[in-house]
Amino acid sequence: MNNSPEHAIILLSGGMDSATCLAIARSEGLVCHTLAFDYGQRHRYELQASAELSQRLGAADHKVIHLDVSPFAGSALTDSTVAIPEQSGSAAIPVTYVPARNTVFLAMALGYAEVLGASQIFIGVNAVDYSGYPDCRPAFIEAFSHLAALATRSGIEGHPIRLRAPLQHLSKADIIRLGQGLGIDFRQTVSCYQADTLGRACGRCDACRLRLQGFKEAGIKDSTNYI
Amino acid sequence: MNNSPEHAIILLSGGMDSATCLAIARSEGLVCHTLAFDYGQRHRYELQASAELSQRLGAADHKVIHLDVSPFAGSALTDSTVAIPEQSGSAAIPVTYVPARNTVFLAMALGYAEVLGASQIFIGVNAVDYSGYPDCRPAFIEAFSHLAALATRSGIEGHPIRLRAPLQHLSKADIIRLGQGLGIDFRQTVSCYQADTLGRACGRCDACRLRLQGFKEAGIKDSTNYI
Repeated sequence: MNNSPEHAIILLSGGMDSATCLAIARSEGLVCHTLAFDYGQRHRYELQASAELSQRLGAADHKVIHLDVSPFAGSALTDSTVAIPEQSGSAAIPVTYVPARNTVFLAMALGYAEVLGASQIFIGVNAVDYSGYPDCRPAFIEAFSHLAALATRSGIEGHPIRLRAPLQHLSKADIIRLGQGLGIDFRQTVSCYQADTLGRACGRCDACRLRLQGFKEAGIKDSTNYI
Repeated sequence: MNNSPEHAIILLSGGMDSATCLAIARSEGLVCHTLAFDYGQRHRYELQASAELSQRLGAADHKVIHLDVSPFAGSALTDSTVAIPEQSGSAAIPVTYVPARNTVFLAMALGYAEVLGASQIFIGVNAVDYSGYPDCRPAFIEAFSHLAALATRSGIEGHPIRLRAPLQHLSKADIIRLGQGLGIDFRQTVSCYQADTLGRACGRCDACRLRLQGFKEAGIKDSTNYI
């Protein structure tokens, strides 16, 4: 690419972690293309938050891909007949797990990166204060990086697309401090699995619990809009 | 699963290779769930062929997932402004390559397998008489197998979903002989990248060229319906 700026795809859900990824990529001077997925998630407000964050944090453009996950019933995040658990905190994989979600998101991002000529993909997974999803673990990220190098034309041609997960080993409190330092207004992000149509968080689900605890540990005032 | 039959997901495009995969899986007594993708491909007839083959070859059910590949312009298979090359035969990656297609297909199949409790996924990739796509090579299949074990709940619980590519090291002629032995009527399969609405093949594109040559080498009469 000579001296022209590198391009990056940022998976942007509208939550704190992916917003922080976008801010990191921008701070490195990357031209950022944000990508969100409409997979019928119950927390629809996150799609709106994602589009707004993309613009506020200086992405070049934003795309929403509609994902048909009709065969994937059974997750509390997409199936409104399954209750969102409150304060689970157990070590088991929770019912909010959507089968193979990050694999599907990254596969789509990989195709998009290849078409755009982007050299990097950012994903905001975190393996410290997280919900125990198998596809958030470092071994998963490593395996996808390896796959990406083999799956694409650019990989074969000697310049594989890099998968970056810069928050992987940070605590939620670390992420909040980092994001704040990069100028993110966390009120604009939404974490709650069942935020209402105004973007107000329940304060009780697993995602809210991790967020609340993160602000507390970071010693930063939580300005999240709770119901 | 005790003594109950195992379930498998079969990626079924409507072509010879995936039809042969389905026939192999059925011959092993697997309960087969076929999966096709509508990604705006020019060769629309293959979707009809896929649904018919699923039923004729005894699958338990068939699903079509609509894939939004709007960001992935630039492949001759989805973009009608790019011409399908005839008799390319070069070693380079052809313009019919759809970025990350098999990665996306397998990611969706993985989620579906996890939801159904299927223990295997079949994909009809072939690395002998093939078009040079990076995501058809054995190294890609190995990398995805490794990813699948890490990406899913079942993998973590000690029974990873197996990715099977039984045609990987067979020539097109071998596949034709094998499929015929398993009772496939290859007239019902469509390979052509630009088959017409009646399913008639052009006889000139890369896919037709490989198919024609395969029948010739197998010494089996090619009953394909050509334009």
